[in-house]
Amino acid sequence: MAWRFHCENQTLEPGRVVELNDAESHHLLKVMRAKPGTIVHIFANGSECRGRFIGTHGSNARIELEQIVLPPAPPRIPLHFVIPWIRGGRTETLVQKLTELGASSIIAYHATREVVKSDNPDRLIKTALVACKQCERADLPGVKTVTSGQEAIRMTALAKQHVFLLHERVATPLLSEALRRALTQSEKVPGLQFISGPEGGFAEAELELMRDLVTPVSLGRRILRAETAPIAAAAVALALTGEM
Amino acid sequence: MAWRFHCENQTLEPGRVVELNDAESHHLLKVMRAKPGTIVHIFANGSECRGRFIGTHGSNARIELEQIVLPPAPPRIPLHFVIPWIRGGRTETLVQKLTELGASSIIAYHATREVVKSDNPDRLIKTALVACKQCERADLPGVKTVTSGQEAIRMTALAKQHVFLLHERVATPLLSEALRRALTQSEKVPGLQFISGPEGGFAEAELELMRDLVTPVSLGRRILRAETAPIAAAAVALALTGEM
Repeated sequence: MAWRFHCENQTLEPGRVVELNDAESHHLLKVMRAKPGTIVHIFANGSECRGRFIGTHGSNARIELEQIVLPPAPPRIPLHFVIPWIRGGRTETLVQKLTELGASSIIAYHATREVVKSDNPDRLIKTALVACKQCERADLPGVKTVTSGQEAIRMTALAKQHVFLLHERVATPLLSEALRRALTQSEKVPGLQFISGPEGGFAEAELELMRDLVTPVSLGRRILRAETAPIAAAAVALALTGEM
Repeated sequence: MAWRFHCENQTLEPGRVVELNDAESHHLLKVMRAKPGTIVHIFANGSECRGRFIGTHGSNARIELEQIVLPPAPPRIPLHFVIPWIRGGRTETLVQKLTELGASSIIAYHATREVVKSDNPDRLIKTALVACKQCERADLPGVKTVTSGQEAIRMTALAKQHVFLLHERVATPLLSEALRRALTQSEKVPGLQFISGPEGGFAEAELELMRDLVTPVSLGRRILRAETAPIAAAAVALALTGEM
């Protein structure tokens, strides 16, 4: 497996030399202990290039790009997730898994019924980046944090896409039925959005605001944890769109 | 949400009094601080009863059963998982998620390419029990640990069921295609088995032993972590069998 490093806002072309930022340089030089000549992959904005570590500029690693490589394509139908902050570092786990599963965007919100004090937006972005390096994605998911479910719902409404509310204890329709219907109704589905709630469930005000915007769907008979539901939804969406 | 407690090998009938074991008594008395009269649910072997905490016998809580309640039914087609021990407590996370997703059995094996020293079979069983309490299952999954992939594969072969190998980088078929084929080929599918490997992948000897026993399937274009792949497979299997 190639050692992969991210390079922000760079055009990747054979022959060019790019410089890794501090964090990525640290990973290459101190963690992986690369020697000049080491082959690495550099990815940026969905592109990827094989290259060679040629030396440092200050404490930053310089990579000479050699050959374009094709990273795995993102899902044909983009998947978007609106997730609550969840206690115990589980938001980070969820961002990691959704990134692996190809999520295009992830919005983390503070739910009325779950107070999380250790919320760190930068850590979510870093988690997504590390997951991209590991799962061979070359496109970072958009990771945003907003202060409330209400704000997240308003952003979701603007996107004008199918929005599925991963709801506990809703008898019908099942997620797979609702997804199949959405996928056969439209010729071109621009994207699929999934909103999920915290362990305590959505507050009335959050539900009220979503009423006409979302399709509530059931994930089956058992109660899934807050971080399990979106992961399961992502896998089901990939399977029903021919990606898994 | 009801407070749910597990009672091993008991027949649950209204009118009977059952005694919780030490761990469950501790949870009821010390963690939840129940007072006599508190309503709880007791589950055992797939059955569930509402009851009332009536007092203690030594340090064990006694519950008088009052009314049978119907727990969520298990998946109509049982799902079985063979998973590697993975470093960093991720085996426990995986057992938790697979239990929520309704797995009937989970076998954890020591993979040739991943040495995990902090393996604790009892902790896996406890993790599954706690997950059952939370996700409202009344049937504990069978959780076993075996010493090697070879041993797990031999046990799998005996079950004579469809076995899907969650393989990295296998172009075709996709998991969803292979599952659809298996589900339409047979009138009655007795169960679906999923075998997955560690971060380092399967060793040659493990793959050789599986060659004629399993259907290798792809989970898509990205590389999933060892604990993500079985979770995704469980969700896809539930969706394609009309459970999610």
